[in-house]
Amino acid sequence: MTGRLFGLGVGPGDPELITLKADRILRACPVVAYPAPDTGPSFARTIAEAYLTPDKTEYPIVVPMRIERFPARDIYDAAARDLSRTLENGQDVAVLCEGDPFFYGSFMYLYERLAGRFHCEIVPGVSSVMAGAAALGRPLAARNDVLTVIPGPLPDTQISERLAASDAIAIIKIGRHFARIKALLECEGLIDNAGYLERISLAQERILPLEAAVGSAPYFSMILIYKGAENWVASLPVDGSPVAADITEPAQ
Amino acid sequence: MTGRLFGLGVGPGDPELITLKADRILRACPVVAYPAPDTGPSFARTIAEAYLTPDKTEYPIVVPMRIERFPARDIYDAAARDLSRTLENGQDVAVLCEGDPFFYGSFMYLYERLAGRFHCEIVPGVSSVMAGAAALGRPLAARNDVLTVIPGPLPDTQISERLAASDAIAIIKIGRHFARIKALLECEGLIDNAGYLERISLAQERILPLEAAVGSAPYFSMILIYKGAENWVASLPVDGSPVAADITEPAQ
Repeated sequence: MTGRLFGLGVGPGDPELITLKADRILRACPVVAYPAPDTGPSFARTIAEAYLTPDKTEYPIVVPMRIERFPARDIYDAAARDLSRTLENGQDVAVLCEGDPFFYGSFMYLYERLAGRFHCEIVPGVSSVMAGAAALGRPLAARNDVLTVIPGPLPDTQISERLAASDAIAIIKIGRHFARIKALLECEGLIDNAGYLERISLAQERILPLEAAVGSAPYFSMILIYKGAENWVASLPVDGSPVAADITEPAQ
Repeated sequence: MTGRLFGLGVGPGDPELITLKADRILRACPVVAYPAPDTGPSFARTIAEAYLTPDKTEYPIVVPMRIERFPARDIYDAAARDLSRTLENGQDVAVLCEGDPFFYGSFMYLYERLAGRFHCEIVPGVSSVMAGAAALGRPLAARNDVLTVIPGPLPDTQISERLAASDAIAIIKIGRHFARIKALLECEGLIDNAGYLERISLAQERILPLEAAVGSAPYFSMILIYKGAENWVASLPVDGSPVAADITEPAQ
């Protein structure tokens, strides 16, 4: 009997936003893997820290966080090799994924290497996009609204096209693209419809009108835009500029 | 001291996909409200049934499920009136929401009536879109993919425009629009990129290539389209036609 591989969504940050299913599986798995930067703590591990009892074997998948791209292929090849040995030995492996495993998650790199050979199960999680709307206190999409999720690294022209075709928009993976995207939204006349959010659902959560956000933004930040609601952001508190970036972005 | 209003995301259907936070709040709230059709069980109540111990006061918000539109305003006005009395009496109220409360949910109709007067908190939930990708075993969005969520009731021309501008697309609220949307995707050359899903995460879950889905579809069904992956649906089992529709759509 080989072990099973679980991709567990652990939600946007608040450890209480883990599902009962992920909770049950995480308790039962003897081996727990998670993405980790080369310096500093793993965000996924931090979310699930309470579960990481001393009897668990931890397996950090270290992916350097940096601006320059570099081939992460070797890292996932090595991780898949190590974890397939564990699975062949009959041990179940839980892989912790921030948010949802299949929503812009790095879990897919392991999944594509292991899913054909082992029993794999994905446990969906609460996405930061839904948690962002909850934190804002503003419905993300209603009735027949079109909702689009746009990665911030895309070029301006592509972002503009998608902005035009949607009612509600989440721009994710902001990080070092913050100033460019803010300028673009100003240009498109959408700055009064845009809220800036960082560290959603954590104690350090910060939410403010995009207009009031200055400086740089961490990788785990987001801009939510509601086109139909002119100047709704006036209701948000203006509490200063975002903290300095501490993560740029994971290599791909 | 007035009571607090909680909008609780209870996830896509599997009761284990409720978060620890929703679980804790639901246990503690003496009053539990949920949307319910005029005939048959409430889906949100079914998901959370295990929590509905005899000591809870249940408050179904009955919204007729029918094709013809009618003003649901009176229903939400009356529900807000009743629940505000409960909140004024100091009792906390949990409102159960399928999936996520602010992702196309009817909770917003109560929220807009009560949020200004009472302490309100939204607990985000696992969306059916993320659960759908998990059930398919296929990442929803990767790297710099643009993901768009399109409501099925939109006219063909609007759906076509959005299809053109995205990499991954979830078409939700299929119901009586099934045949039209299937024909549209055939026309757009996307039928081999489209999977059909219904009752995601439940025992009756059914997943098949859209091509193989015939007949009608329930309201809680979805089409997932991955444009970059020609004919990926060939890997899905073809296990017959969807069951007859049992819900059309809630009135708005």
